[in-house]
Amino acid sequence: MTQPINIPILPISAEAFASFGQLIAVDQASRVFDINAGYATRFHDLAQVDTALDGGRTGISIFAARPRNWPIPLSVMECHPLGSQAFMPLGGQDWLVVVARPGSAPAAIDQLYAFQVPASMGVNYDRGVWHHPLLVTQACDFLVIDRIGSGNNLQEIEISRWGCQLAE
Amino acid sequence: MTQPINIPILPISAEAFASFGQLIAVDQASRVFDINAGYATRFHDLAQVDTALDGGRTGISIFAARPRNWPIPLSVMECHPLGSQAFMPLGGQDWLVVVARPGSAPAAIDQLYAFQVPASMGVNYDRGVWHHPLLVTQACDFLVIDRIGSGNNLQEIEISRWGCQLAE
Repeated sequence: MTQPINIPILPISAEAFASFGQLIAVDQASRVFDINAGYATRFHDLAQVDTALDGGRTGISIFAARPRNWPIPLSVMECHPLGSQAFMPLGGQDWLVVVARPGSAPAAIDQLYAFQVPASMGVNYDRGVWHHPLLVTQACDFLVIDRIGSGNNLQEIEISRWGCQLAE
Repeated sequence: MTQPINIPILPISAEAFASFGQLIAVDQASRVFDINAGYATRFHDLAQVDTALDGGRTGISIFAARPRNWPIPLSVMECHPLGSQAFMPLGGQDWLVVVARPGSAPAAIDQLYAFQVPASMGVNYDRGVWHHPLLVTQACDFLVIDRIGSGNNLQEIEISRWGCQLAE
């Protein structure tokens, strides 16, 4: 059996993630203003919600993610050709994303990019961006804002045979 | 000076909140299904996002709420006539909502309803539902899904003179 290949885990930044979507965090806001007579600050408009294609609407759901153990073998990549998908962690722990560029399904390990995401940060995948399903090392719930509607909004490819993983 | 009037704080439930919007929590889902080869459970479609009126779109923002001290005087009620507004707490603490029915602005204390909301639960205010700005007793961030667009989407009334409060 060949040795698994470790994909480097990069710190996330808006610049590094720009091809894939937006980061949802207070330090990502280009517009910040006080509301509620000073009792709240609004970090405004952090993600591009894009769910209307083919009669879709925006839904709010919760995903409860089960933990993976290090090293984490990467098994599948998926994309949603009809809508964006935002994930905001509710559990106070860092998490991991693995993405590839939109378009044709990724075909090789060097087309995958792994990022560590702080507990206080969500991400919004642009429509059509290939991503691995949720990756956490402790159970964690996420608020998810994505497209709900008819049509085939899920493409998946199996990548277990590539033998790649994330290592601690 | 007259004595402040305490508004009773009720435990929240979908039934009690049905006139005002939806609750966002895993125990509120009518559709629950496994996804990601069993690595996640989807608690599906928990809120009615309603932001399209007058060319609006759905945005994702973060509100950082500043703490109030008990007893909490109620100062203002607001409503968004053009769109729904969902709040999901990110800080792991219970919070409070005060609402009134949609339509004309509330005119008396007995038109206000106060609820304690668990840390794991968000709420979505239906379009036009009058509500008090965020009420927390420790600083807490919220993910907010609401309408972004032109038009006047904020109505406010000052209610400090009513002399009502929430007491611990």
